[in-house]
Amino acid sequence: MSYSTSVQELIDQLGRLPGIGPKSAQRVAFHLLKVPTEDALRLAQAITEAKERVSFCARCFNLSEGGEECQICSDPRRESRMLCVVEDSQDIVAVERTQEFRGRYHVLQGAFSPIDGIGVEQLRIKELMTRVGEEDVDEVIIATNPNLEGEATASLLVKYLEPMGIRVTRIASGLPVGGDLEYADELTLGRALEGRKTLAEGNSLER
Amino acid sequence: MSYSTSVQELIDQLGRLPGIGPKSAQRVAFHLLKVPTEDALRLAQAITEAKERVSFCARCFNLSEGGEECQICSDPRRESRMLCVVEDSQDIVAVERTQEFRGRYHVLQGAFSPIDGIGVEQLRIKELMTRVGEEDVDEVIIATNPNLEGEATASLLVKYLEPMGIRVTRIASGLPVGGDLEYADELTLGRALEGRKTLAEGNSLER
Repeated sequence: MSYSTSVQELIDQLGRLPGIGPKSAQRVAFHLLKVPTEDALRLAQAITEAKERVSFCARCFNLSEGGEECQICSDPRRESRMLCVVEDSQDIVAVERTQEFRGRYHVLQGAFSPIDGIGVEQLRIKELMTRVGEEDVDEVIIATNPNLEGEATASLLVKYLEPMGIRVTRIASGLPVGGDLEYADELTLGRALEGRKTLAEGNSLER
Repeated sequence: MSYSTSVQELIDQLGRLPGIGPKSAQRVAFHLLKVPTEDALRLAQAITEAKERVSFCARCFNLSEGGEECQICSDPRRESRMLCVVEDSQDIVAVERTQEFRGRYHVLQGAFSPIDGIGVEQLRIKELMTRVGEEDVDEVIIATNPNLEGEATASLLVKYLEPMGIRVTRIASGLPVGGDLEYADELTLGRALEGRKTLAEGNSLER
C-alpha cells in the first residue's frame, strides 16, 4: 500500500519546506489529517493570507504588510544616516530586539554563494548602491552572518562601498555573552582576541 | 519591531505542527513568504484537499480516500483471519512495505498513555472487540511500538482479547538487521536474548 493521492501530495508539499525531511513531512501530514478540519484549514488560510498581504518593501526589501514601504522605512523617526545591511528580514527582527539601532535597514535577500547560484545579481546590491547615492547615508553597518557566505558578502560590499567615500563598518565577532572560553571554537576565540577592546591605556606618555 | 499580523499568524500556525519549534516555524514562514506565490499556495491547497477527501475507514480506522472503507478493507483478496493491530495509519505503510502480511489491519489511533489523556476510551479498542466478535478472526498480531506506551497498549489488549479465545501474538523485539551488538542498548539486547530462536536442537533424545 502506498499513500492515496491527496495524502502523498500533502507529504510532498510539506517535504519541500526547509528543515523538514521525508519523515517529518509524513509526521506533520498525519498530524494535519488527525486534527479537526478547522485547525488544519487555519494553517492553509494563514499561508494564503500571508501571501496575499505581505510583499517586499520597495526601498529596503524588508517584508511589508499593506503598503509599498515597510513599517521602518515609512517611520520618519528613524535616522536615515545609518544603514544596517542584513541578509534576510528575520535579521531585522533580531537587530531590533537589541534596541541599539535607530537607523534604517537594507535587506540583501540572501548571501553571496556562487555554488548555490547566488551571485551579485541575485542580491539587492545595486539597490543598496542607489540608496547610498540618493539618501543621506553616513555609515553602512554590514550585519551579514559571521559565516563563510556572510563574510564573503561583507568583503564584496566593502569593495562596492569604499569608492563612495562613506564609513563602512562590520558587526563584531567574538564570544557570546554568557559563553565559556573553554568551549569556544578556535575561530571565534581568535576573532575575540583580534577584536579586543582597550580597557586601560597603561602608563603611556600621553596620559 | 515585531512581525506584522499575517506573518505572526503564519508563524503561530506553523509552530503548532509537531516537531516544529518557534525557530523552525519562523524559518518556514520566511521561506513561504520568499518562494513564488503559486508554490506556497500549492501547500495550502494540499492541506485543504487532503482534509476534504481523506477520512477514516469505518471498519479499521485507517485513512481512506473516496470511500467509507479503506483500500485494504475493501480488497477481497486480503485474508480476514489475521488482524494486525497498529497505533497509527503510517504503521500500516511500514508493515505493508515488508510484504510479509496479507491480512487486515486495525488502527487504534494512538497508544495507551493516561498521562497524555489517552485511556481505553480514546483508543479504538471497543471497535476492535466488535470486529473480533463479528469477523472470522483467528489471530490478532499486536504491532504497537516497542516503547512504554506501545507495550502498555499490548498488555491491555491481551487482557481484553484473551477471554475471546483467539490467538494473540506480539511482533518480536530484538536487534535491528544490520545492527551491531556493541552499540545495542541493554533493553534491546535483553529482548533479543529473551526472544532467541532455536537453530539446532542439539543431541536431545527426541531427535
